[in-house]
Amino acid sequence: MTRGYRLYYWPGLPGRGELVRVVLEDAGAPYEDVARLPEAEGGGVTAVLPFYEGRAPGHPIFAPPVLVVDEELVLAQTPTICLFLGRRHGLCPADEPGWLHANQLQLTLSDLVDEVHQTHHPIAVSLYYEDQKEAALACARAFREQRLPKYVRYFERVLQHNGGDVLVGDAVSYVDLTLFQLLCGLEYAFPRAMAQLAPEVPGLLALRDRVAARPKLAAYLASPRRMAFNEDGIFRCYPELDGAI
Amino acid sequence: MTRGYRLYYWPGLPGRGELVRVVLEDAGAPYEDVARLPEAEGGGVTAVLPFYEGRAPGHPIFAPPVLVVDEELVLAQTPTICLFLGRRHGLCPADEPGWLHANQLQLTLSDLVDEVHQTHHPIAVSLYYEDQKEAALACARAFREQRLPKYVRYFERVLQHNGGDVLVGDAVSYVDLTLFQLLCGLEYAFPRAMAQLAPEVPGLLALRDRVAARPKLAAYLASPRRMAFNEDGIFRCYPELDGAI
Repeated sequence: MTRGYRLYYWPGLPGRGELVRVVLEDAGAPYEDVARLPEAEGGGVTAVLPFYEGRAPGHPIFAPPVLVVDEELVLAQTPTICLFLGRRHGLCPADEPGWLHANQLQLTLSDLVDEVHQTHHPIAVSLYYEDQKEAALACARAFREQRLPKYVRYFERVLQHNGGDVLVGDAVSYVDLTLFQLLCGLEYAFPRAMAQLAPEVPGLLALRDRVAARPKLAAYLASPRRMAFNEDGIFRCYPELDGAI
Repeated sequence: MTRGYRLYYWPGLPGRGELVRVVLEDAGAPYEDVARLPEAEGGGVTAVLPFYEGRAPGHPIFAPPVLVVDEELVLAQTPTICLFLGRRHGLCPADEPGWLHANQLQLTLSDLVDEVHQTHHPIAVSLYYEDQKEAALACARAFREQRLPKYVRYFERVLQHNGGDVLVGDAVSYVDLTLFQLLCGLEYAFPRAMAQLAPEVPGLLALRDRVAARPKLAAYLASPRRMAFNEDGIFRCYPELDGAI
């Protein structure tokens, strides 16, 4: 048995896979990012497709990311993978009320990720953005004006209620790492909307900077392993959806 | 301190609150369904609003349902509440790989719930259905033709891979209870689409019937506490979204 972590996620976009990577990297946990290996070494989309199409061995998976642990535990659903890693690597409160609270916050961050995706795909994931652009414009407007402010104000409140340093517990957790990645993505996809909201969420932005400065994560962010946002991912820079056109 | 469970959820619709209720009822756990009490006794929408608007005491909540445990633990996010209840009441595998697997399946069921909601609200939760009906028709069509079949076939595969009796572990878990409620809702909202898919998912339909026959749940379903689906909830009977008009 080979001990260690193997991550399976679409190789061309950061997406939800990046939420797992920032936890692995901050934990200093070695992992094989399987689909980013060359096809000849078992990488590429070919490595991920079996999980998407129900052909992979083991219990069925609905969609990537998938984390295989020590070749025996097969985890899917980003919040579940992150909860597992957080508990194992000291990036999560250890007591049950604490990790349940972490999971609750993580699921609300996950809902926000879903709503970001919905801004460019309100009708169907199977259609191109261009084929649902009119609905996307309306959806993105409601997102910028109502949902995004509600979410970021909420998380600022959570932060202040917890003392202002971290979202849950008394040390940086995987929830803070997810918040970091989410704020990076929001600033990429909605720079105007986020600039308007910035004065209301100083605590969140300071937390993002503290997280980014953590030595292992900073080393990752400066490495070629860190993937840039692009228009295949969840966070897409379409200026018209940011109200800029 | 008053020991016990208090549930806070919008009183006029089954929604996500019902996913919590079926676990509480099957567990035989007494609970106060606060918002369904008369306003004069502290019930009604007034009881829920503070959690929605960030005015409730304790750590901030983004949205109901909320379960308060023994007046001290405040849980939100349906999958987190259900995981807690499942672990506490023997409705969940006890070992960590088991409950992580349960949580993973629950999050995929939760994604399906979100996509059902999106069929009638593809643009914005703040708009009426009638004001986003054109997008809803297109969204619902993609849901019926692509997403719904993918989800129910996936869960049938999960069930068969686990031996055919239950979705995870070796006894009925909160995941099976959620599946039950989801299938009820899907048959209410998409009777045509579900009738077409029925021959492909005999295991799921048999599991639904076994769950419905469990004594405590059956007693609940026959009681006035059980709330009918309606057009304010997640599962809405709009025949045009089922392809019937």
